[in-house]
Amino acid sequence: MTLVEELVDLVGKDAILVEDADMAFATEDWRGRYRGKALCVTRPATADQVAAIVACCHRHAVPVLAQGGNTGLVGGSVPPSDGPAPVIVNLERMRRIRKVDPVNNTMEIEAGCVLAHVQEAAREAGRYYPVSLGAEGSCQIGGTIATNAGGTSVLRYGNTRENVLGLEAVLPDGTIWSDLKALRKNNTGYDLKHLFIGSEGTLGIVTAAVLKLHPLPTRHAMAWIGLSDPQAAVRMLTLMQERNAAKLSGFELMNHTQLDLVVRHVPQRRAPLETEHNWHLLVELSDTGGEEDLDGALQSVLERAFESGLIADAVIAASDGQRAALWEIRHSVSEANKKAGVGLTTDCAVPVSATAEFIDRTGAAVRALAPEAALVIVGHMGDGNVHFIPFFSFEHWNALEKRNEIATAIRHAINDVAHALGGTFSAEHGVGQVSLKEMDRYKTPADLTLMRAIKSAIDPRGLFNPGRLLPPAT
Amino acid sequence: MTLVEELVDLVGKDAILVEDADMAFATEDWRGRYRGKALCVTRPATADQVAAIVACCHRHAVPVLAQGGNTGLVGGSVPPSDGPAPVIVNLERMRRIRKVDPVNNTMEIEAGCVLAHVQEAAREAGRYYPVSLGAEGSCQIGGTIATNAGGTSVLRYGNTRENVLGLEAVLPDGTIWSDLKALRKNNTGYDLKHLFIGSEGTLGIVTAAVLKLHPLPTRHAMAWIGLSDPQAAVRMLTLMQERNAAKLSGFELMNHTQLDLVVRHVPQRRAPLETEHNWHLLVELSDTGGEEDLDGALQSVLERAFESGLIADAVIAASDGQRAALWEIRHSVSEANKKAGVGLTTDCAVPVSATAEFIDRTGAAVRALAPEAALVIVGHMGDGNVHFIPFFSFEHWNALEKRNEIATAIRHAINDVAHALGGTFSAEHGVGQVSLKEMDRYKTPADLTLMRAIKSAIDPRGLFNPGRLLPPAT
Repeated sequence: MTLVEELVDLVGKDAILVEDADMAFATEDWRGRYRGKALCVTRPATADQVAAIVACCHRHAVPVLAQGGNTGLVGGSVPPSDGPAPVIVNLERMRRIRKVDPVNNTMEIEAGCVLAHVQEAAREAGRYYPVSLGAEGSCQIGGTIATNAGGTSVLRYGNTRENVLGLEAVLPDGTIWSDLKALRKNNTGYDLKHLFIGSEGTLGIVTAAVLKLHPLPTRHAMAWIGLSDPQAAVRMLTLMQERNAAKLSGFELMNHTQLDLVVRHVPQRRAPLETEHNWHLLVELSDTGGEEDLDGALQSVLERAFESGLIADAVIAASDGQRAALWEIRHSVSEANKKAGVGLTTDCAVPVSATAEFIDRTGAAVRALAPEAALVIVGHMGDGNVHFIPFFSFEHWNALEKRNEIATAIRHAINDVAHALGGTFSAEHGVGQVSLKEMDRYKTPADLTLMRAIKSAIDPRGLFNPGRLLPPAT
Repeated sequence: MTLVEELVDLVGKDAILVEDADMAFATEDWRGRYRGKALCVTRPATADQVAAIVACCHRHAVPVLAQGGNTGLVGGSVPPSDGPAPVIVNLERMRRIRKVDPVNNTMEIEAGCVLAHVQEAAREAGRYYPVSLGAEGSCQIGGTIATNAGGTSVLRYGNTRENVLGLEAVLPDGTIWSDLKALRKNNTGYDLKHLFIGSEGTLGIVTAAVLKLHPLPTRHAMAWIGLSDPQAAVRMLTLMQERNAAKLSGFELMNHTQLDLVVRHVPQRRAPLETEHNWHLLVELSDTGGEEDLDGALQSVLERAFESGLIADAVIAASDGQRAALWEIRHSVSEANKKAGVGLTTDCAVPVSATAEFIDRTGAAVRALAPEAALVIVGHMGDGNVHFIPFFSFEHWNALEKRNEIATAIRHAINDVAHALGGTFSAEHGVGQVSLKEMDRYKTPADLTLMRAIKSAIDPRGLFNPGRLLPPAT
């Protein structure tokens, strides 16, 4: 029997796709940037089926590619275009929410659940699953775990990693490793779940997880602030943390160029302030219960900041509708940039105390390489995660020769500044196939050696998502 | 040259102890329960010296035991009494606080820093390092990382694991693996630091770390509450989380028997309430800045709980002095129990929603085995971590035959209940040498196989803290 025939025997004909047209959703990414070949797409309904598929591939020494919503930005869930074609394990049929425990503040879910459905199920139980990002309507929870997804709530609630208590994964030999405990304290040997979280499908296939829930925020206050430079934004963050630490739930930065693109290219988006400013901050407080006047608390910090010359102007959202409208400006960034031209997106994080210097030095480096590029800057300031996006008009970009070389040179220049400041070239997007060279450039030999030792110990044949995350040893 | 002569050459004579009397502090635990033999105690001053010592031991195939403050409860930092005697690497000379960055809310420290000094250095910068436990005056930060220490602030701030951003460790072959980044987001390959955190010296020797700091709480409110049963305590926790989620910083439970031991055996401790209750809760709110009346917020929840019959009585601390006095009752538990008799301490955690059932079923199981034992119960209720302590008078215990068998049977009975409820036999103390049998009894074969694969990949000769954490494969 061929491998595909064996797989059909194992999980049924309906759960195996083999035609190119049927597999297209899984062999190409949503932006159309990466495309590859797969032997077939399998759609298991249980962890046992995942294990059976993986064990079968292991016997045949065929690579395996786990896939959630395929919404990533670094090509990590798209099969390679050359080399052995993998069997794709698509988790979308495993989408049960098994248990919500509001007293323990946990929920157990299967890996194929869409993030937005998980958020909604928590909300229905009066609880909050905080991980939130642009793709939440289609990305799957297993994918957010495999990539340790970040987003806009890391400042208060941490990354996906900090919100996973229990995990189940299928290992490269078909073993089901299951540790679905719903505990906040458990010191019984190595904490293996952290190996799989963020490993981008190279060590195991996440099949289920226990997530940490939080009390549902019931009250909010939000301001849009205009200010003159990033250093003032850093000082504003410290001020907010010293005055309203426990309630600070959002602290997002963008420059005038970014706001301008949103206002010009996305319908119904308006600049929140009447005056013009070089830099803008979105600040949100939220609380569960409590008696404090959050608008008043925010107003009081803003007045103090205004008096000391830290900020130039600000407006506080007067209603939930106005608050939603301010968040919509932030969430319209990708749409605006896609419409307006070609942006070379980067994903650095540096210590918060170094963000202003990072922006200054990066700006100088990019201007030296490409004086004609606009500098679009938008970031999760509270985490030091600044997306610095050198930006070109379509006409200009398309007229350029050596586009790839220019893009690579600019990206390296930006990542070099981050690295020099103790930062990282990938804060939240991951490595995938895009940043393999950066792994060689910025990680230490000890780092790479240790990662390869772990990979060999768990996947000695190198069958799980080969060619991703870890660059080949030279 | 002998190994010891080589080590003297490497780090100097003053940094090597070889006499039994000089080594006694390192070869025995503070309670006098475990004692072993060491080849020598080394006292390196830098990570390079640690690496040189380890590489030398690697060449000689001699085991290495890393040691911090030697304050653990499970014998993990005490050398074995038989088998090859290890070289102890004591970190106490590496105690520099290298950098405090209040804007980034981080600090970089060396592994030998005493926890209380770390807390104090954070406080001097107007920041807060939240990990807090009984041994904080002598335990070292490297030891808290190697054991993923818990304590009384996990409910709000997480375990040690959640408060470490960067880490440096010496591997069993003498390689220095260093990733001292001060970042909240970094998705660039496997998150290796989580392998070393909680690995109890079996994978690497922690030499330095970057810790996460938090805004310093400036305002507090605290109540001592009397109530009739653990289920009411669980409902009280949910009520507090729904009404004051972001500010809840302490939620500790003890039964009447435990409070009584403290009041009778520790000078100047008094029962906070005039009436008698079967169960007691200590609840604390804290905030940084803010305008809310915390005492008023606490009072309002207590009134509601009293009206609905959830609690029987409560008192709110009227001053910082009263608040400190209430915490002192909680912190006097170990002293009282040590003076009063023999307690068989256990360290289970279960889902918070199962704590009341855990206490009921455990009580029945222990009464069936040892009807004469008192049941002392004290725990970090907010994390589901309940220390259930069957308690005997000295006279009764000393008159017993087969004490070890009785203790083992009782511990297994308690841990069995926790396991049946999805819980763990070690929430915060770790495995060390005490709970090796529990690892075999409760962890899955897949868990143990994976842990052994990791151990073999990083320490193929098994030289780092052999015989601890991982039971031998059978």
